[in-house]
Amino acid sequence: MTQADELRASVQHSMDLDARDSLAGWRQQFTLAGDEIYLDGNSLGPMPRCVPAALETTLRSHWQNDLIRSWNDHGWIDLPITLGEKIAPLLGAAPGQVVCTDSTSINLFKVLHVAMQIQGWKGSILSEADNFPTDLYMAENLRAVAPRGALAFERVASEDLAEAIDGSVSVLLLSHVNFRTGALHDLVDLTARAHQAGALVIWDLSHSAGVMNIELDACQVDFAVGCGYKFLNGGPGAPGYIYVAERHQNSARQPLWGWMGHAEPFQFAPRYEPAPGIKRYLTGTPAILSMVALDAALAVFDDLDLTLARQKSKQLGEHLKDLITVSGVPLKLLSPSDAEARGSQVSFTHHCAYGVVQALIELGVIGDFRAPNIIRFGLNPLFNSFQDIERAVVLLKQVFDEGRHLERRFDERKPVT
Amino acid sequence: MTQADELRASVQHSMDLDARDSLAGWRQQFTLAGDEIYLDGNSLGPMPRCVPAALETTLRSHWQNDLIRSWNDHGWIDLPITLGEKIAPLLGAAPGQVVCTDSTSINLFKVLHVAMQIQGWKGSILSEADNFPTDLYMAENLRAVAPRGALAFERVASEDLAEAIDGSVSVLLLSHVNFRTGALHDLVDLTARAHQAGALVIWDLSHSAGVMNIELDACQVDFAVGCGYKFLNGGPGAPGYIYVAERHQNSARQPLWGWMGHAEPFQFAPRYEPAPGIKRYLTGTPAILSMVALDAALAVFDDLDLTLARQKSKQLGEHLKDLITVSGVPLKLLSPSDAEARGSQVSFTHHCAYGVVQALIELGVIGDFRAPNIIRFGLNPLFNSFQDIERAVVLLKQVFDEGRHLERRFDERKPVT
Repeated sequence: MTQADELRASVQHSMDLDARDSLAGWRQQFTLAGDEIYLDGNSLGPMPRCVPAALETTLRSHWQNDLIRSWNDHGWIDLPITLGEKIAPLLGAAPGQVVCTDSTSINLFKVLHVAMQIQGWKGSILSEADNFPTDLYMAENLRAVAPRGALAFERVASEDLAEAIDGSVSVLLLSHVNFRTGALHDLVDLTARAHQAGALVIWDLSHSAGVMNIELDACQVDFAVGCGYKFLNGGPGAPGYIYVAERHQNSARQPLWGWMGHAEPFQFAPRYEPAPGIKRYLTGTPAILSMVALDAALAVFDDLDLTLARQKSKQLGEHLKDLITVSGVPLKLLSPSDAEARGSQVSFTHHCAYGVVQALIELGVIGDFRAPNIIRFGLNPLFNSFQDIERAVVLLKQVFDEGRHLERRFDERKPVT
Repeated sequence: MTQADELRASVQHSMDLDARDSLAGWRQQFTLAGDEIYLDGNSLGPMPRCVPAALETTLRSHWQNDLIRSWNDHGWIDLPITLGEKIAPLLGAAPGQVVCTDSTSINLFKVLHVAMQIQGWKGSILSEADNFPTDLYMAENLRAVAPRGALAFERVASEDLAEAIDGSVSVLLLSHVNFRTGALHDLVDLTARAHQAGALVIWDLSHSAGVMNIELDACQVDFAVGCGYKFLNGGPGAPGYIYVAERHQNSARQPLWGWMGHAEPFQFAPRYEPAPGIKRYLTGTPAILSMVALDAALAVFDDLDLTLARQKSKQLGEHLKDLITVSGVPLKLLSPSDAEARGSQVSFTHHCAYGVVQALIELGVIGDFRAPNIIRFGLNPLFNSFQDIERAVVLLKQVFDEGRHLERRFDERKPVT
């Protein structure tokens, strides 16, 4: 085939894939403009259509008119719990184990501290050297507040993890999907290995929840955290969540004792008495406006079969990978080649990665850059189409054909994960 | 005078006071309905008129259209700092010392830990026995993470504080205004006493910022925290703030190391390196929607002279106190009688306090109840009028005259501070 033939064939193929896509209708639930291709839902999910009305009601009716009474009359006080229960099915968690609160970083501190309490502050924390920085910082930081001050923190390369899980490890702390490479850890296998070695596991699901089946209960995961603003589409800086397996909930006190985690917050008692169950993981007054946005956004998942989402996500990734190969554009695949081993993201490297991402943005394709040479494309099966991918690759080829990526300087403050 | 004469005289007096009120115009900046009297701005401030438009722009223009680019193009990434700089003048703080982040509870943990680090984890934390619970819990909690595990935490009655500040105290942790009684501590005197004894001070300004002059720099206060949702009117659960005097900022690392507090967050470096200055007090990704509401709400303070606000606040309190005395309603003053010794709140006790508050709410006067027998009336000089107070007392008298307060049971989940 000539390149023109190949191109025509792939355009037709994209159209066919879209025609057969059972999730194609989901895009209508978002407010994305038609002429831009958004491949950054793994950084900031786009706005679900129902969000502005929900916030408008909270502002104009609840806050404005009902004022303080809204804490009860409109369920503000229960939002951390009701939101947790909405997130739970996305994680394969039975009720009573997920709460929505604070940021992922703060939540990591809580569960790391509790996991080490349960382990008697013996042994080490093991993580991946290329884990997301906040996860690493929180583990590093925990040493500063460990009661014996001798907490070991080991970081190894991803490929060495399975071997490094031995009797010296007390807590295995991992991100389900690597934020740079998109590599997906085998949660089932690593959790089982950790348990066999006597370790507890903490999974950071920020880059996986909402685009694939996760089975926390079935895998007997101990703890998990995640954010609300990526594939959950809860808005910029949406609150995070915490999963604590029921069996661990009353074994320890999380280390940030605030009034919302008290057994009887409105008794205003002078002594702290943690609430039973998952509620003890709350600390201060919840950020209601941000929570209302996330609450509305989660309606997108109401009738979604996550098996179909995962299946389409893999197809989108394969489509992108294949078309880039066909295009001849000189990007090198950084993500695992096997779709089963990837999250909902495909990353490439190029020595002008920053320039490529900037040039693409100017042409209406929004991906993102990670220093020093990584181009990340996030794929969200709920709104990305196969023709989106096709058009993105055509524009990527245009960038290289016209040399649009050259001579652009990296502004290190630019991207936000 | 007969009671009718007194009543007529006091109505005229209220009208006169309103006619002379230089802040009367401020009420137009809020969306309060005319027929309700809101005396709970010390719990949840009412919505400033400019908030919905600000959020609408953030949703419909920034998040919807500009998506991930908004972190830079619309200043999301800088909001914790720019908001801190807007709050700083309300606290008497020069630039570079206030940041907006997380909840008051989380922020208390950060500054308590840092203060004890600076003090070498020697000596005790001293607080008031009736401080707000979260403040007490966080100090209690700090013992669980103290490196030597032997941290002493002393709580004394308010009247014994001055005497209790001696060489054994390392950190004095106080709320500027007591959430139950409305009693205002002498920040100048207590800070000076603490410094003389070699202690550092942490002030919780949740119940005072926005309704009185505060001079953190001039008083050489070390640390302060506060919330955004009371007299700052930032909306339910609005983020809190932290003040750290410049001289302490680089002396220690706060104990919740997140990527937003890193010197170079977008380098995604594997090791934590705190940002210089106040920025190191950030932890995770900021809750932008809640921050945008607070940011808009702070415009209310743009041309406000806090001296006038404090003056009117005291007058409102005196007016309320005097009218209740005149009315003959059997409430007992719990707050200090002297306006100088009160925050912007007047509290009373009654054995049917819960019933009184509920009956008043039904008549359109929103105050709140604190177990077991406290009625709190918050006074906000930016929207409460003297005729509001007059009308509230008339309705309070009606409650007692008609026995509306009897036979109502306390629902302990009802009130939120």
